[in-house]
Amino acid sequence: MIIVLRPNISKEEEDCVLKEIELRGYKPHVMRGVSRVVIGAVGDEQSHQSLVTLASWKQVESVTRIQKRYKLVSREAQEKNTVITINDQVKIGDKKVHLMAGPCSVENEKQLMHIAENVKKNGATILRGGAFKPRTSPYDFQGLGENGLKLLAKAREATGLAIVTECLSEDHVEMVAEYADIIQIGTRNAQNFQLLIAASHTGKPILLKRGASMRIEEWLLAGEYILSNGNPNLLFCERGIRTFETYTRNTLDLTSIPILKQETHCPIVIDPSQGCGSAKLVESLCIGAVSMGADALLIEVHPDPAHALSDGPQQVTLEDFAKLTKDLKPFLDAVGRE
Amino acid sequence: MIIVLRPNISKEEEDCVLKEIELRGYKPHVMRGVSRVVIGAVGDEQSHQSLVTLASWKQVESVTRIQKRYKLVSREAQEKNTVITINDQVKIGDKKVHLMAGPCSVENEKQLMHIAENVKKNGATILRGGAFKPRTSPYDFQGLGENGLKLLAKAREATGLAIVTECLSEDHVEMVAEYADIIQIGTRNAQNFQLLIAASHTGKPILLKRGASMRIEEWLLAGEYILSNGNPNLLFCERGIRTFETYTRNTLDLTSIPILKQETHCPIVIDPSQGCGSAKLVESLCIGAVSMGADALLIEVHPDPAHALSDGPQQVTLEDFAKLTKDLKPFLDAVGRE
Amino acid sequence: MIIVLRPNISKEEEDCVLKEIELRGYKPHVMRGVSRVVIGAVGDEQSHQSLVTLASWKQVESVTRIQKRYKLVSREAQEKNTVITINDQVKIGDKKVHLMAGPCSVENEKQLMHIAENVKKNGATILRGGAFKPRTSPYDFQGLGENGLKLLAKAREATGLAIVTECLSEDHVEMVAEYADIIQIGTRNAQNFQLLIAASHTGKPILLKRGASMRIEEWLLAGEYILSNGNPNLLFCERGIRTFETYTRNTLDLTSIPILKQETHCPIVIDPSQGCGSAKLVESLCIGAVSMGADALLIEVHPDPAHALSDGPQQVTLEDFAKLTKDLKPFLDAVGRE
Amino acid sequence: MIIVLRPNISKEEEDCVLKEIELRGYKPHVMRGVSRVVIGAVGDEQSHQSLVTLASWKQVESVTRIQKRYKLVSREAQEKNTVITINDQVKIGDKKVHLMAGPCSVENEKQLMHIAENVKKNGATILRGGAFKPRTSPYDFQGLGENGLKLLAKAREATGLAIVTECLSEDHVEMVAEYADIIQIGTRNAQNFQLLIAASHTGKPILLKRGASMRIEEWLLAGEYILSNGNPNLLFCERGIRTFETYTRNTLDLTSIPILKQETHCPIVIDPSQGCGSAKLVESLCIGAVSMGADALLIEVHPDPAHALSDGPQQVTLEDFAKLTKDLKPFLDAVGRE
Repeated sequence: MIIVLRPNISKEEEDCVLKEIELRGYKPHVMRGVSRVVIGAVGDEQSHQSLVTLASWKQVESVTRIQKRYKLVSREAQEKNTVITINDQVKIGDKKVHLMAGPCSVENEKQLMHIAENVKKNGATILRGGAFKPRTSPYDFQGLGENGLKLLAKAREATGLAIVTECLSEDHVEMVAEYADIIQIGTRNAQNFQLLIAASHTGKPILLKRGASMRIEEWLLAGEYILSNGNPNLLFCERGIRTFETYTRNTLDLTSIPILKQETHCPIVIDPSQGCGSAKLVESLCIGAVSMGADALLIEVHPDPAHALSDGPQQVTLEDFAKLTKDLKPFLDAVGRE
Repeated sequence: MIIVLRPNISKEEEDCVLKEIELRGYKPHVMRGVSRVVIGAVGDEQSHQSLVTLASWKQVESVTRIQKRYKLVSREAQEKNTVITINDQVKIGDKKVHLMAGPCSVENEKQLMHIAENVKKNGATILRGGAFKPRTSPYDFQGLGENGLKLLAKAREATGLAIVTECLSEDHVEMVAEYADIIQIGTRNAQNFQLLIAASHTGKPILLKRGASMRIEEWLLAGEYILSNGNPNLLFCERGIRTFETYTRNTLDLTSIPILKQETHCPIVIDPSQGCGSAKLVESLCIGAVSMGADALLIEVHPDPAHALSDGPQQVTLEDFAKLTKDLKPFLDAVGRE
Repeated sequence: MIIVLRPNISKEEEDCVLKEIELRGYKPHVMRGVSRVVIGAVGDEQSHQSLVTLASWKQVESVTRIQKRYKLVSREAQEKNTVITINDQVKIGDKKVHLMAGPCSVENEKQLMHIAENVKKNGATILRGGAFKPRTSPYDFQGLGENGLKLLAKAREATGLAIVTECLSEDHVEMVAEYADIIQIGTRNAQNFQLLIAASHTGKPILLKRGASMRIEEWLLAGEYILSNGNPNLLFCERGIRTFETYTRNTLDLTSIPILKQETHCPIVIDPSQGCGSAKLVESLCIGAVSMGADALLIEVHPDPAHALSDGPQQVTLEDFAKLTKDLKPFLDAVGRE
Repeated sequence: MIIVLRPNISKEEEDCVLKEIELRGYKPHVMRGVSRVVIGAVGDEQSHQSLVTLASWKQVESVTRIQKRYKLVSREAQEKNTVITINDQVKIGDKKVHLMAGPCSVENEKQLMHIAENVKKNGATILRGGAFKPRTSPYDFQGLGENGLKLLAKAREATGLAIVTECLSEDHVEMVAEYADIIQIGTRNAQNFQLLIAASHTGKPILLKRGASMRIEEWLLAGEYILSNGNPNLLFCERGIRTFETYTRNTLDLTSIPILKQETHCPIVIDPSQGCGSAKLVESLCIGAVSMGADALLIEVHPDPAHALSDGPQQVTLEDFAKLTKDLKPFLDAVGRE
């Protein structure tokens, strides 16, 4: 760690800092600069007590970490990409770019089966669909609950598609794990650490959405909760961050793709539907995401968005989805993937 | 609701929108403007199905709500301020401005008792202290858990202070409610709706922190989850929003005080410690908050911040706290409160 | 415009609003809803005085515009894409995607010539280079001024590349126009309207960067200053917006590509160098931008970034640039462009 | 500066960094940590060439400054508060908190005189009023120009109030300086450095608004452009930053008051009108600002906001202003100011 002292402090005040650094097991290197004294504290920041609390002392101007705070998710811990295998068939993080498609909410059997068959026909390998819905207002449709999960399982049986669905509650983790192939942790729960821990214990692959105001570092550390709790099957899913822009619902941060490729070995999924909140923009974002190296896309598809029970404006129609998958082909070729 | 149609659409496309509006129980008023056709759909937006999904249609440019989405928390629902009474003594939202003070984390009995006695002596009526800590990194101190709660109860017994402490998990709601007088929902869980519902069912007063990227409307709607689940004892707590500024940990949005006074009848609490992340700024923020009408302050106090197990840099010392409470007096007088 | 009245107002207060609406030349349509009275004011918002000031009245809850505020830059004003021709050769907005490449700052003749020849060899058609540099600190290198412009002109003569360079000051507009083929308005001056007007009067094509906290609508309106001052040759350049993320210097908003394609007929340029602030991320962003439909890329290239006089960390080397142009090819093919 | 090297680099790569550090005049201190080599480069960062460009090298992970980048505006450069005297009477930064009040735009003589007399009667010492208006849309009212300045001068003559008004253009700096007592640099021009330099050369006091997405450090550096160009009379004016919140026009960052009191000796002014965009919130923000130590307030006042030619919704009426000045009194007393 690097500790910068304030100008014009006494020898005693400086010594007090040096003593504390040693007490916590670091070796201090003092550098006397032109306007400041800077102390490099050498030692393992991950196993020793942090020095950041020294910033509360009057004589300390700032304390800066050197080491990255995440370990298991980092490229340094594992150079090779993690490939996540689902039901012995779907391999995410490998050569094939996967399409996870389906309705925002599971509404009824007919709707779900119709969509499932249709997205499968157009190349999707994973069916998405919300059974438990986190809604901003308590008066909005909250999902079908376990009945929704049962319908998803039925759709898997009928089509062979794997299932990804959100889990909102520690109390539902077991239940969701029973039906789902991938457990989704939504953006509002991205730092609900108790839910992360509970979900990781199921052993099921976890799709961790980025929180709306999470820095990349915080997102990686949330992922660290999964791996450090014994579950190596983690997918990061970018879905847009909250900014001042109001034209779109969120600002999809596609730069997170090359950043995550640098920082972590886990696959990255892009959710353009939440990212922009507008069906008209989804195709272009899918093309960008695939070209930049996304391992999978998570797309909301609905046969009749105007009658959807949630998030109508951002769901693409079945026709749009068919067109989209066709339009993606040349970019998949360009990026050398399937 | 107001539906704006795109220019140059056909009569059939327009009729289709009108029919759908009627089908959902609204009465359409068509206004033919210079460049657009605008339709006012008259009907109760809270009891009828929303029309926002129509934005997915090609012929629709935008759909805008008119009514506010929150009901029970709104000033329209209750004009008079809600006053929350704790242990028959502490009344929040009344004439007295309350100080909720204590360490970021409960660390041990000696620390807690020392702080409790000290903050009581300086005018605090409520003791804060984290037993369950949501930490960005899984490798940071996660709190003492139930042992921390027991220590808080002991401190209440010794001092008569009421207790506010955070609950992180639905599975701990009953346990936390057993020990605490006010259950805190932290910023990371502000839209963890299952936790909100579970906490509201305990009947205990709920202190709901604002999520780091929550708009005021979303915060009020999260509060609506508490009231609509039968718990009228809700406190909103502003603790800073996430912005591009890096000098402070967050940007404390003091404007939320007059806004909440307009929009809701529930008391408002300000947390300057999380708001700025720096002990040196806390006093000034407390003064601003009290002067602008806050009903309570939530302040992190630690006898030795450099050795705190969490968030050292933002905790004020016991001496700072004593000075702060003295310095607040003239502003309490100015605002006509105690 | 849509005017929403507050609940429980008197007949006189309502009449007062209606009278004012008529006085300003609009025709009011009154809709009596469940909880609010809503008035649709029909009339041309672009030629009549706005009604937004009515929001200052006690009886008015909100006033919302219906019409878009930009005219000349909009797709409604011109359906066909604008193609900007420079020196009778370079056509931006047409089939070919153009590379604008060069150093952040023009440093000296040798540096510039070396870069110019090199980027030309690798397919660039336009040379970028700053002669006037807007620097956050007054103590940083401010550019070579007119000497820098002269060097750019020399490089054009030697290579045939067109020149794009920033103008910081109304007083330099004539001078910059004398040397440059495209005048760049930087992000810090994106709402320096006097500079926009002065630059537009030169008749030279204007590359208008997005301000760091500009909404799309405000950016389009800034562009409207160019077109409404008689200059039809406008290029919009996305260069990243300011968000809470600190991993990158800015957050490049690639969604602005499909949005601008919808809203305007002007070409769109992407600047990945400013967008991320890190050379390592530039190639991936270029690939995303081209795949999503950008008309040109603006890339900072330097033979020795560690010795650059400004913005070293985000400039790619000549080798990186050569690789990048090669790597872009398959994506250009995929998008059907050159 | 602190340079962190990547793990697993060769001895040659490390030596190359050390050599470059020495070449630029710094003395390197090498610290071999557990997972990284960290180099402290001792030397004056303000007079030597920066090392930040080394971040472009493959073997370098990060480069961090130690020294603050601003000098003349800093508390370290001058411990005592700067007091700015205007017309030998008004002293800003001294014991009295000044009210700068007046219309958003100067509209006509009658309006201005009426407001000027009224705000004077209620305690204002400075008259604000826009003659040149930076408007988001080219179709909005752009101000009366020099005629507006003449009216302001007339109002000064009649009332003795000092004048603050915005300058938008380098070409108007002389003209504005002729009429105004304080030259305002608006938020859109806060990093229009050529305008800052030109304005500073007039010798007139400069009121520098914070840019909508400026970090505190960048704002201080923009102020440094004024002082380093020979003008010591600088006032910083906070007017709200751009965030995701849409309830208010901007988010007024009142924490900037204690921060600026720490970092700089220049007075701080708060503009609540722009800060919130809503007249109803202005009084509460004024109270907070004064209580937290603001040296002056900049308030938009209009006798008939609904007919204002700009920014109607955020202007308070004359009656509101009279009430506000009365309501501020106890808080001025509390803070020990007049």
